[in-house]
Amino acid sequence: MHYGLFPGGKRIRPILTLAAGEIFGGKRKELLPFACAIEMIHAYSLIHDDLPAMDDDDLRRGMPTAHKVFGEGMALLAGDGLLTEAFHLISGPATRSLDPELVLGLIHELGCAAGVAGLVGGQSTDLEAEDRKVDRAMVESMHGRKTGALILASLKIGARAGGAKPAELKRISRYGEAVGLAFQIADDILDRAGEEARHESGRKEAKKATYPSVVGVAQARERLSDLTRQAMESLAPFGARAEPLRAIAGYVAERALRT
Amino acid sequence: MHYGLFPGGKRIRPILTLAAGEIFGGKRKELLPFACAIEMIHAYSLIHDDLPAMDDDDLRRGMPTAHKVFGEGMALLAGDGLLTEAFHLISGPATRSLDPELVLGLIHELGCAAGVAGLVGGQSTDLEAEDRKVDRAMVESMHGRKTGALILASLKIGARAGGAKPAELKRISRYGEAVGLAFQIADDILDRAGEEARHESGRKEAKKATYPSVVGVAQARERLSDLTRQAMESLAPFGARAEPLRAIAGYVAERALRT
Repeated sequence: MHYGLFPGGKRIRPILTLAAGEIFGGKRKELLPFACAIEMIHAYSLIHDDLPAMDDDDLRRGMPTAHKVFGEGMALLAGDGLLTEAFHLISGPATRSLDPELVLGLIHELGCAAGVAGLVGGQSTDLEAEDRKVDRAMVESMHGRKTGALILASLKIGARAGGAKPAELKRISRYGEAVGLAFQIADDILDRAGEEARHESGRKEAKKATYPSVVGVAQARERLSDLTRQAMESLAPFGARAEPLRAIAGYVAERALRT
Repeated sequence: MHYGLFPGGKRIRPILTLAAGEIFGGKRKELLPFACAIEMIHAYSLIHDDLPAMDDDDLRRGMPTAHKVFGEGMALLAGDGLLTEAFHLISGPATRSLDPELVLGLIHELGCAAGVAGLVGGQSTDLEAEDRKVDRAMVESMHGRKTGALILASLKIGARAGGAKPAELKRISRYGEAVGLAFQIADDILDRAGEEARHESGRKEAKKATYPSVVGVAQARERLSDLTRQAMESLAPFGARAEPLRAIAGYVAERALRT
């Protein structure tokens, strides 16, 4: 569990939770348990995704994947443990200073994003789509569940815990939907660029349904720019308080567009 | 997820939740979401436990295991989905008629029983103990986490949702600890009897740390009788209201002792 949770990743999701909550005056101490739970769920999904039964990856960020180091059974259990402990954490003393009804709502939001309507559902669609012909709408809907749902939940949970009003929450959600999809398209563009540089286009991953593989790299870049613009527009009324969220949207796009 | 959740099992855990809650006047409608979530977590643990990376079982209750029918990737995701949806269910509208602070406490209790201190921790100890020499204390502690924790939580969650007072909860917990261990010892005795009948003592499971393999069948039966007596004694003050819990303890013991 520790190996999967501390791989030196970007921590985009928990940063989004803190940044969204702080726009509305949320205290870092009250936001952190949710930020941690979201990162734990992200870490579990990567460990399970890397298993031989799924993507069968030997490396993640240049390091051996969890099952390569600890064996498949232990990696499976580490993922199960991180998922369970995420819900254990946010239902306990760590969130006791917030209104219990709000906390229940936030747990429900996370459960929805991580479950059949989100992460798990997206993964199973992805598994079924392997080696099959898919179109742009299918890839966007799959990404929306597989990656988008948890990113959106990171922002909504932060905003709700911070005290956002319904209209404010709506704007944060619009930002989250745009940035979630942008994030996945950017990752797909970067993966493809990396594969081409290593002449690996015949790899298993290359047969997976990705945005650039369906619409082409040029159109993928264009969609990424559009989404980033949409994300920025949603933040307009928040002024300087939304600077961290603007920086993240800019960072996501820039990384992929400069390749 | 449906295949794993509706295999025609005994439903011992959700029945314990309902039976414990009804002792203290809990309404079935309010107890059911928790009973369902507990069975979903039990079903997830069986699907993951049967995977090739764990026990590598082809059959469960005479039917092909989930990964034999749907493939390993889909079975992995079905387990992840059942675990996530369990927490999604009990944090949502289904439990809205109970006090939110109580519901948070019950989610926390379930998270504890299913996580590192319970199910997942017990499974990992079990995995590490394979083909190693273990003693009676280690087997009891492993069983306590792997099976006992969720059975105990089924009872405590039912009792708390039903409105049990602290002293009453303590008695239910004592019953749960005894019955949880009795249940595992009974299962081990039945498994062993089944294997002997099929002349399969060389199977992988036979090398696993079980109660009868460590202390012998005669001592295992004796411990089972003791635990059943303890369980019955804890229920004494509840009179006729505890009849369903008495029947379950009797059923658990009888099944194994008559072999």
